[in-house]
Amino acid sequence: MVRVEGPAGERRAKRRPDDLVVEEPMTIQLDGTVVATTMRTPGHDFELAVGFCFSEGLLADAPVTGVRYCADGSALASAFNVVTVETGGRAPEPATRLGNVSSSCGLCGSEQLDELAARLDPLPQPTGAPDLDVLASVAATARPDQPLFEATGAVHAAAAFDDEGRIVVLREDVGRHNAVDKVVGAMLLDPAAPDVPAAGLGLFVSGRASIEMVQKAWSAGFGALVAASAPTALAVDAARRANLVLAGFFRDGAFNVYAPERL
Amino acid sequence: MVRVEGPAGERRAKRRPDDLVVEEPMTIQLDGTVVATTMRTPGHDFELAVGFCFSEGLLADAPVTGVRYCADGSALASAFNVVTVETGGRAPEPATRLGNVSSSCGLCGSEQLDELAARLDPLPQPTGAPDLDVLASVAATARPDQPLFEATGAVHAAAAFDDEGRIVVLREDVGRHNAVDKVVGAMLLDPAAPDVPAAGLGLFVSGRASIEMVQKAWSAGFGALVAASAPTALAVDAARRANLVLAGFFRDGAFNVYAPERL
Repeated sequence: MVRVEGPAGERRAKRRPDDLVVEEPMTIQLDGTVVATTMRTPGHDFELAVGFCFSEGLLADAPVTGVRYCADGSALASAFNVVTVETGGRAPEPATRLGNVSSSCGLCGSEQLDELAARLDPLPQPTGAPDLDVLASVAATARPDQPLFEATGAVHAAAAFDDEGRIVVLREDVGRHNAVDKVVGAMLLDPAAPDVPAAGLGLFVSGRASIEMVQKAWSAGFGALVAASAPTALAVDAARRANLVLAGFFRDGAFNVYAPERL
Repeated sequence: MVRVEGPAGERRAKRRPDDLVVEEPMTIQLDGTVVATTMRTPGHDFELAVGFCFSEGLLADAPVTGVRYCADGSALASAFNVVTVETGGRAPEPATRLGNVSSSCGLCGSEQLDELAARLDPLPQPTGAPDLDVLASVAATARPDQPLFEATGAVHAAAAFDDEGRIVVLREDVGRHNAVDKVVGAMLLDPAAPDVPAAGLGLFVSGRASIEMVQKAWSAGFGALVAASAPTALAVDAARRANLVLAGFFRDGAFNVYAPERL
């Protein structure tokens, strides 16, 4: 790799070692049925698998009884690209996503939101206005905990933060959804991490807030979602349905809060 | 929505109208079989559907004979969230992605790359060194053509640019993969756009370069891929296999070129 510096006419190319983030596909199974394949940064794979199944509502209320690689004694690295989450059959039979979709010639965003609202109760009404200083500071507070981003520039981060803006769990991943699933999975699996539902905590994401991000924050019971970039219209609608404080679009020291009735 | 400005202790919240990008799910069918569902910014839907099928290799060499909404006379907006690409059955029977994946307990990144290389011939060797001024300028050149990003901050852009750095096709979408598929679809469908294979053109993407981005650029025959952010390790490997010039990680006026042997 070379890094090219300087203005037009004076560009200099300096050879440098490659410092690149790794992405590998990982297939997630629930009780032996494939439910997703995602390109992810290897590491925290069990958290990713459990966080995904939880956020997508696939576990319902079933407890996770085990998580394992689909590695049958093989030493191949690729054997570690399939993770099975086990509930001993207590989770509902997962429908494949494609199967779901193909049966519905008429899916739209508001229906997606209605389905979400049917599955998840609204969060408790916040007791006071959100702390603007906490919302404003969390991106900067999270930054030193992102070594992969510092080195490679190619990964997203997600973090749980407390009511004073301290980072309590942070994960990095090449996929922004994966980073959130890893945070939620850590909270579900790691006794040292805060529990789910994440009452009193907020979720920070280094990218944009789409409806999936709101879904993940809502599912895990976070009270606030802070996105470095902007949300979509559907994400704002979903946050309002969820009673979730939503902040985003940080630029030049300013940011937006998308539930002004709370301020 | 309120915009919060000013430092701690002096924050001011100003009420503003919401200016949010819309995302709606769209299901893509090929000859009546569901091949994908994606959250996309409505608009250029036919380009998205055709570009996706092309980039994924689903068309093989079959010509597209029609593209239509799955709208059976209904006036519901959701009827416009399913698009069918038709080849009169000349495209191979599409395997669902989940089906593909579940049959292979041992997928890994290098296998994914091998599959890609088996399907796609390497691009012609570039005749000279890439024009660093063009690579350096394209992000700024593309910026005025991104009204959705300017208004909402929540969308990605992809653009085809010529050897002097002029933008010839640009599309915005809430999904970065979709933006590229729309550019490729425009080149396939619009007689006024440059043709595919995109010999002599480069592809700009406003986000990161993952292997899927390299796949899309390679499939469409672009000679260079310029990503505003950094590539992953697998993307760099794929670009080398493809003979694709890869530039990225633009920061503070400098950027990386990941095929230094070309400079």
